[in-house]
Amino acid sequence: GTAPAIVNAQEQVRWRLTSSFPKALDTIHGAADVFAKLVSDATGGKFQVSVHAPGELVPAFGVVDAVQQGTVECGHTCGYYFFGKDETFAIDTAIPFGMNSRSLTAWFYDGNGLKLMREFFAGYNIVNFPMGNSGAQMGGWYRKEIKTPADLNGLKMRIGGFAGRVVSKLGGVPQNIPGGEIYQALERGTIDATEWVGPYDDLKLGFHKVAPFYYYPGWWEGGAQISLYVNDKAYNALSPEYKTIVQIAASHAHVNMQAMYDARNPTALKQLIAEGAKLQRFPREVMDAALKARNEVYKELNDTNANWRKVFADYERFMRDQYQWIPLADGSYDQYMAAQKL
Amino acid sequence: GTAPAIVNAQEQVRWRLTSSFPKALDTIHGAADVFAKLVSDATGGKFQVSVHAPGELVPAFGVVDAVQQGTVECGHTCGYYFFGKDETFAIDTAIPFGMNSRSLTAWFYDGNGLKLMREFFAGYNIVNFPMGNSGAQMGGWYRKEIKTPADLNGLKMRIGGFAGRVVSKLGGVPQNIPGGEIYQALERGTIDATEWVGPYDDLKLGFHKVAPFYYYPGWWEGGAQISLYVNDKAYNALSPEYKTIVQIAASHAHVNMQAMYDARNPTALKQLIAEGAKLQRFPREVMDAALKARNEVYKELNDTNANWRKVFADYERFMRDQYQWIPLADGSYDQYMAAQKL
Repeated sequence: GTAPAIVNAQEQVRWRLTSSFPKALDTIHGAADVFAKLVSDATGGKFQVSVHAPGELVPAFGVVDAVQQGTVECGHTCGYYFFGKDETFAIDTAIPFGMNSRSLTAWFYDGNGLKLMREFFAGYNIVNFPMGNSGAQMGGWYRKEIKTPADLNGLKMRIGGFAGRVVSKLGGVPQNIPGGEIYQALERGTIDATEWVGPYDDLKLGFHKVAPFYYYPGWWEGGAQISLYVNDKAYNALSPEYKTIVQIAASHAHVNMQAMYDARNPTALKQLIAEGAKLQRFPREVMDAALKARNEVYKELNDTNANWRKVFADYERFMRDQYQWIPLADGSYDQYMAAQKL
Repeated sequence: GTAPAIVNAQEQVRWRLTSSFPKALDTIHGAADVFAKLVSDATGGKFQVSVHAPGELVPAFGVVDAVQQGTVECGHTCGYYFFGKDETFAIDTAIPFGMNSRSLTAWFYDGNGLKLMREFFAGYNIVNFPMGNSGAQMGGWYRKEIKTPADLNGLKMRIGGFAGRVVSKLGGVPQNIPGGEIYQALERGTIDATEWVGPYDDLKLGFHKVAPFYYYPGWWEGGAQISLYVNDKAYNALSPEYKTIVQIAASHAHVNMQAMYDARNPTALKQLIAEGAKLQRFPREVMDAALKARNEVYKELNDTNANWRKVFADYERFMRDQYQWIPLADGSYDQYMAAQKL
């Protein structure tokens, strides 16, 4: 057969996408580029999405305001940056001792996650789509070892978003420092520790040279989801065909980001270890203290924030079921495989 | 804004998709329906894919021949059913003690997996796309307990595809029985055991009533991928836009199937336990014997099958790296979470 002749008669659409992530992060910024290229390819170039780094149009943490107001048609960001508006935003990304990557995606695609979060985001004129996940993150870089919960007392730690609430309860001092300034703060001792993402992204910033103790797991990000937020007027103006193309291009970018992290983290981890990173698992006692602090924060939120209470009730029920199943097939399989010389 | 006026000027395309899975399996058959609807929605109904159950056009295990010959434009199946043609087919689905769901997707999307398998499938006039994964499967249903590797000796077990090679090495007698006939064979004692998928699918077939010991993990399917196979002439006849839409509709169906299994397995597992299923973890000694048998099979294949050797070399290297990383962030996080009363 021969290729069908193409006459492009869908209307031209131009969107601007503002990202919260610098271009250097090819995984997390790159997902927006993947999305834009697919939308263009699927429409013969009729539907163009231009991708903008933080500061070009909108600051990194101005994405929600810009999308809500229609300053841009869409943005790619993490909801938990905006927990100051409403803590429910954090559920769209990751909450301490929350769901892992696969479970969160299951809740969004086949549970009530997308429905509940769409209801919430409607209040911000946003239509949201999952568009990436990092998997479970590392617990960050520390200048000194963390042996007991007391070692967190007074610890000045750069930590992004909502998790700072729990760190505060543990006696820590959460700091919000842009990525480009963390290394120097750590080197000078202005801060004692920082979390970032995982081996692939962390290696680029070189924290292992000034804070060698590399802890796991990142109990505040068991699977951090990144989202596409679309202004509802811009979305509703699309044809049904274009709406579907936006949805499935985002789905491809979603699974592709997790694949990039999974494929690239192992090599980066080897290099970090070769360059002196000291891998440490958080002691059980530290994990337990953090979980207790998390439970106190959630209790307060359930009492004070009706949006949180509604969404979290469904999230929590779903997560409890997940963790009764995960250890069986997947968990025991991975545990066995990791113990072998394959 | 108002919706842009739509004039559909892309050419009409009609494909037939033959599935290896009966309609009753809404997860695995359903992924083809999800794909077909998205392709239609993204093209204003211009590109129609009709989905056919096994036997309507082509038998369950005739999918590869039918796609290769162009009898149908595409099929949805598991490569490992066709290991008799070439064992390399199995790598497209799952091989004993192979990669888990996320790792396999990472190898396909960001490693060399898709490239290497496309080269292999070109010999069958097939262009392949990942279109679903079950996650790690359960180890199946047994009339008697499996306490040592000796209990596998002479065991008549229904087991699909390539894994039978390893079961044979362990002294078992693998049987290939269609889904609809397994229950009766198990009830009558014609077979001693069967594997199927996991709680959600297994519950429908009721095996727990006649073979109550439910083992985990399914060491032969740490993450079974299901694929869309497209006839290369049919694919190459598509416009660039339609090619992209096929790709991203398959990606959505891929992540959506894993989400369906993850969301639905926990509830089904509870019901199975309530109805008498006895959960058992395969003893370490049994796992070790199976791994040894698997290693012998792979050694033979590396010596005799050049296609296998080429693809497996890359697969194995990628998997080794994966299992150095998985236990750290994701593994330790899941392990901690599963141990809590959340």
